[in-house]
Amino acid sequence: MGTMADQISVMDPTLAREGRVRVVIEDVTPAVDGGRFPIKRTVGEKVVVEADIFADGHDLLSASLLFRREDDPRWTEIPLEPLVNDRWRGSFPVTQLGRYHYTLLAWADEFKTWCAGLAKKVEAGQDVTLDLLAGAALVEAAASRAAAADAAALRNWAIDLQSSGKPTLARVELALSEQLRVLMGRYPDRQLANTYPAELVVVVEPELARFSSWYEMFPRSCSPVAGQHGTFKDCAARLPYVAELGFDVLYLPPIHPIGLTKRKGRNNAITAEPGDFGVPWAIGAAQGGHKSVNPDLGSLAEFQQLVTRAKYYGIAIALDIAFQCSPDHPYVAEHPDWFRKRADGSIQYAENPPKQYEDIYPFDFETADWRALWDELKSIFIFWCEQGVRVFRVDNPHTKSFAFWEWAITEVKKAYPDALFLAEAFTRPKVMYRLAKLGFTQSYTYFAWRNTKWDITQYFVELTRTGVREYFRPNLWPNTPDILTEYLQTGGRPAFMARLALAATLGASYGIYGPAFELGEALPREPGSEEYLDSEKYQLRHWDLDRPDSLKDFIARVNRLRRDNPALHSDWSLRFHPVDNEQMICYSKQTEDRSNIILVVVNLDPYHTHSGWIDLPLPELGFEESQSYQVHDLLTDARYSWNGPRNYVRLDPQSVPVHIFRVNRRVRTERDFDYYL
Amino acid sequence: MGTMADQISVMDPTLAREGRVRVVIEDVTPAVDGGRFPIKRTVGEKVVVEADIFADGHDLLSASLLFRREDDPRWTEIPLEPLVNDRWRGSFPVTQLGRYHYTLLAWADEFKTWCAGLAKKVEAGQDVTLDLLAGAALVEAAASRAAAADAAALRNWAIDLQSSGKPTLARVELALSEQLRVLMGRYPDRQLANTYPAELVVVVEPELARFSSWYEMFPRSCSPVAGQHGTFKDCAARLPYVAELGFDVLYLPPIHPIGLTKRKGRNNAITAEPGDFGVPWAIGAAQGGHKSVNPDLGSLAEFQQLVTRAKYYGIAIALDIAFQCSPDHPYVAEHPDWFRKRADGSIQYAENPPKQYEDIYPFDFETADWRALWDELKSIFIFWCEQGVRVFRVDNPHTKSFAFWEWAITEVKKAYPDALFLAEAFTRPKVMYRLAKLGFTQSYTYFAWRNTKWDITQYFVELTRTGVREYFRPNLWPNTPDILTEYLQTGGRPAFMARLALAATLGASYGIYGPAFELGEALPREPGSEEYLDSEKYQLRHWDLDRPDSLKDFIARVNRLRRDNPALHSDWSLRFHPVDNEQMICYSKQTEDRSNIILVVVNLDPYHTHSGWIDLPLPELGFEESQSYQVHDLLTDARYSWNGPRNYVRLDPQSVPVHIFRVNRRVRTERDFDYYL
Repeated sequence: MGTMADQISVMDPTLAREGRVRVVIEDVTPAVDGGRFPIKRTVGEKVVVEADIFADGHDLLSASLLFRREDDPRWTEIPLEPLVNDRWRGSFPVTQLGRYHYTLLAWADEFKTWCAGLAKKVEAGQDVTLDLLAGAALVEAAASRAAAADAAALRNWAIDLQSSGKPTLARVELALSEQLRVLMGRYPDRQLANTYPAELVVVVEPELARFSSWYEMFPRSCSPVAGQHGTFKDCAARLPYVAELGFDVLYLPPIHPIGLTKRKGRNNAITAEPGDFGVPWAIGAAQGGHKSVNPDLGSLAEFQQLVTRAKYYGIAIALDIAFQCSPDHPYVAEHPDWFRKRADGSIQYAENPPKQYEDIYPFDFETADWRALWDELKSIFIFWCEQGVRVFRVDNPHTKSFAFWEWAITEVKKAYPDALFLAEAFTRPKVMYRLAKLGFTQSYTYFAWRNTKWDITQYFVELTRTGVREYFRPNLWPNTPDILTEYLQTGGRPAFMARLALAATLGASYGIYGPAFELGEALPREPGSEEYLDSEKYQLRHWDLDRPDSLKDFIARVNRLRRDNPALHSDWSLRFHPVDNEQMICYSKQTEDRSNIILVVVNLDPYHTHSGWIDLPLPELGFEESQSYQVHDLLTDARYSWNGPRNYVRLDPQSVPVHIFRVNRRVRTERDFDYYL
Repeated sequence: MGTMADQISVMDPTLAREGRVRVVIEDVTPAVDGGRFPIKRTVGEKVVVEADIFADGHDLLSASLLFRREDDPRWTEIPLEPLVNDRWRGSFPVTQLGRYHYTLLAWADEFKTWCAGLAKKVEAGQDVTLDLLAGAALVEAAASRAAAADAAALRNWAIDLQSSGKPTLARVELALSEQLRVLMGRYPDRQLANTYPAELVVVVEPELARFSSWYEMFPRSCSPVAGQHGTFKDCAARLPYVAELGFDVLYLPPIHPIGLTKRKGRNNAITAEPGDFGVPWAIGAAQGGHKSVNPDLGSLAEFQQLVTRAKYYGIAIALDIAFQCSPDHPYVAEHPDWFRKRADGSIQYAENPPKQYEDIYPFDFETADWRALWDELKSIFIFWCEQGVRVFRVDNPHTKSFAFWEWAITEVKKAYPDALFLAEAFTRPKVMYRLAKLGFTQSYTYFAWRNTKWDITQYFVELTRTGVREYFRPNLWPNTPDILTEYLQTGGRPAFMARLALAATLGASYGIYGPAFELGEALPREPGSEEYLDSEKYQLRHWDLDRPDSLKDFIARVNRLRRDNPALHSDWSLRFHPVDNEQMICYSKQTEDRSNIILVVVNLDPYHTHSGWIDLPLPELGFEESQSYQVHDLLTDARYSWNGPRNYVRLDPQSVPVHIFRVNRRVRTERDFDYYL
């Protein structure tokens, strides 16, 4: 690795069009849509870059990977190594937040080619007198490119190579010496090098972008007193509970003043009753809009105190950013041209015919005043960053323009490179992927509706084994305030446990909407609906967190084992393994060095006990086929000694429908006992 | 389909960066490396274009495919149809030689969205008074974009839609009428349309580019008199024979003066004996270089006569273009700077250490005088085009610079869009693919070494079912003057028949090096070599074309059935089918309308009879599972009545190791006899 003294001239893009450049660089990975969008990494990860690199003819090539921080014009250079079939590879570490650029440089390496030819000719007993002279010329030319001390050394080499006083074989040995190879490698002739025409970009985010455990909670329901509106102070009092459960992101639905006009009542009633608190997503009232807090929750200062207090517990507060307005939002009067008009001049409320949402005005992203609208919306993120918030869950980003998101996220990250954005887009796959490409840090997924082995396997292979993983980071939610799946409605406690375990182990990032989740809330508003009955979206709820049937201890245990096992901190190592029972799924994750291996088996049927034989690819896990090993169930603390790839598992949903094993390389023997020593 | 009156302003590339453009167009196919290289078609084919097209929100979209000939700025527009999952498709025909451009245009279609919303609201019994006014405004806006007559009509529609005198339901009916839909479709509001940022290119070539049968022949060996040097006149006399065999391209190794210096002797002897004629690829002597003909073959006028005579037989003469020089080539004296120098100032001959080719000087594509070199090499193609040649087999293109080929082929095709280039590159896969991307019409392949079912299947799936087929057209050669495979050396007559049939049916384009092929020439220069003993590359040969064991009748029959069956004129329909015998391979090709279906079964083992059950995907061939059908062996004229997908085949290599069936939809019944009528 070194800095590139002479690269600037080589990087001249007109050079690549010169007819003399013979090296090709193509099919560079990773790259999203040919470099149109950045790839994503977190601090401390590395970027492994590969490319097809070749030239006409038989010349040997050399190639480098170049990288730099976006704000630093100086490239760092790392040599690429050839693999097979003209594929080359190199990697660089990303150690700081923000954006890095990377690209490739390759050239026909005349000295390398000359050395290889010389060796073959000598081996074949051919006369190499002229070859040695040619080599001396190459070394002399390198001297003219070299720093002073090296230049002198190279000139001496050149003299030796052509010295007729020395025996030919001695000169050949000099020519092929490691010392000359290293020296020449420092001063390659790169006049005709080819630089990959694009600078590719990697956005580097905090580790929380890759590994995070989310807990969604309505502040309105946090009061210890039933029927009383919760406050930021009540939220702060709830922090120890959230921390005990092991979550590191506490996500609050919108905390802004709620509109009065067309306010919805309990269970989404068209009209609110007196005393109804409305829907937090109907943002804006006389007290303010997206930069204000709902007075029922407290003051902005109290919110800041909550953020600070949460940090003490290692918890990041995530805000819900919903870019839409209640009819009472100050924007409506101040910027009527940010909204569409109906034929009678009134403002167009949200609709998806025949559904109408009269309490919500969407922004018109086709407005002629779009620049002012974009600036204002961006300033909302900046405002909350200034209050100490860095994590944003963005509501329905797929109903706002793509161009806006790309610009806004990039701009916010310029000021706050640690800001994270979770896209709450439940929509068509290509739209969800597009949002991730535009810059969203994490994305909601279809996980909630993937309940069969086939569905789960297909989906997670797509998310973790294809190019999708370069830009789309899944965040898995078994439930949300909008999604109470049929599986949870009907599956009871085993369903909640299975889905929690799946989310927490399939996904390095996952979340639950609580306390509804840990308390097993499963009643829909009406049959066939995925809406909760008496949803907190429309009313206060009072939750008994200490109910004996709460899953809080199970969840705490899962979150603790997630934290303790680095294999679960990333999704890329996920591999599914065969089980001869369609109701059971088996998969593993491991660290790159295989020092930590987690094996998960889940009974997907919440009603019946199932058993089956799993089949593990032992070599992929770093074991020999005949080796015995121990699997340690981190949920029950049971340990099993296994031997060979096929092993029997049995899971009773009425107890724990899941094994989360740590696979231990060594089985304890008598030598492991203390008294043996 | 119509011309685009208002597209020019929409195509303004700066518009796409405007913040108000909401539609995305991505993943457009076909496109080679994101549009960096053109796709290929032949005259009369069509280009089926697909893309992912979507926007934020719920608006309905419209999209168009735009295409134009490169030299015509006017676009033709064809509507795209939505498939599933945000994928859209359209197609356009390519009817003329040369280059076409194509791109896509998409927009949020406000009127379409409005119509769909109106219909749903009416169905839900909602008040649509304001909606009708909004629709009238859309129609009025369209009127302002419309041609005079349509403008008046649209204004009347607008008046009717908002006329309070008419019942609402009547106005809704007007709004949703087909007549208004068509009229509005003519004048969409495309101010915020998005144009795909690239213009993709398709190169359209003659049908011969897709479907061709090549015969390679050394003119030096065409004399009817043994030991006498053949001439162009002798070649002309051989034309009826070539035509009878059914070939439509007659390819001649280089016809230029051959160098004397370092001339190679028979069987590649280092020094030639007096009377040796040298290697045709050692081009250039006192009599001239690449634009001259070897006086032993005759005059340029006689060559032109050969070209003309060949046309009479429906045969195109293909020349071998080998960009390299003998030491005696005029270029060497005239342009010494087009070659590399050795340390003693002499010109560097070709070498691939330890191999040395002292009779060959390669060009130095890194020469500072590269522009002059490129111009001169291009002028060689132009010169031979002027002599009536349109087909070029390019020798070792992978040892000349990629940039040169892209430029040269494009330039030659500007003057001669019917010129065809076959790349003779037997090298690493990515280099071969690159050459095809750069513009070579057809490419030699690894076919000669693909002899097992697995190898053949893998390779041809890659060539015909992946993106490779958009730019790489395989031309299959069972033998060449450089390649006498072990399979042919040892397999005898059955091997020659099997390989001929495979080449001719797997490949719409194929070729043989004759008469060595039809006469079963199988002796290598030495054991383990793929070189022919007494190769025509170094000496004259006299061939007895009428030998009773010649395969000429078999070859003629295969070429005739190729011509008669359009299923064999393209490679894209190739599908492999299971046979329960590893020594047998089965595949089919069919026309798009399924009117012509060819089914091939080959016994790959030249030594033993094999039999097996083949399993046909009848629905893919357009048959019902229970339907009976007839297969007609076009080699033996035998007919079999088959029923269902599984059928028995048995092939004896000592008779004919191949079935080439035409699959006939109907089986003859008594009703097919004349007397029944």
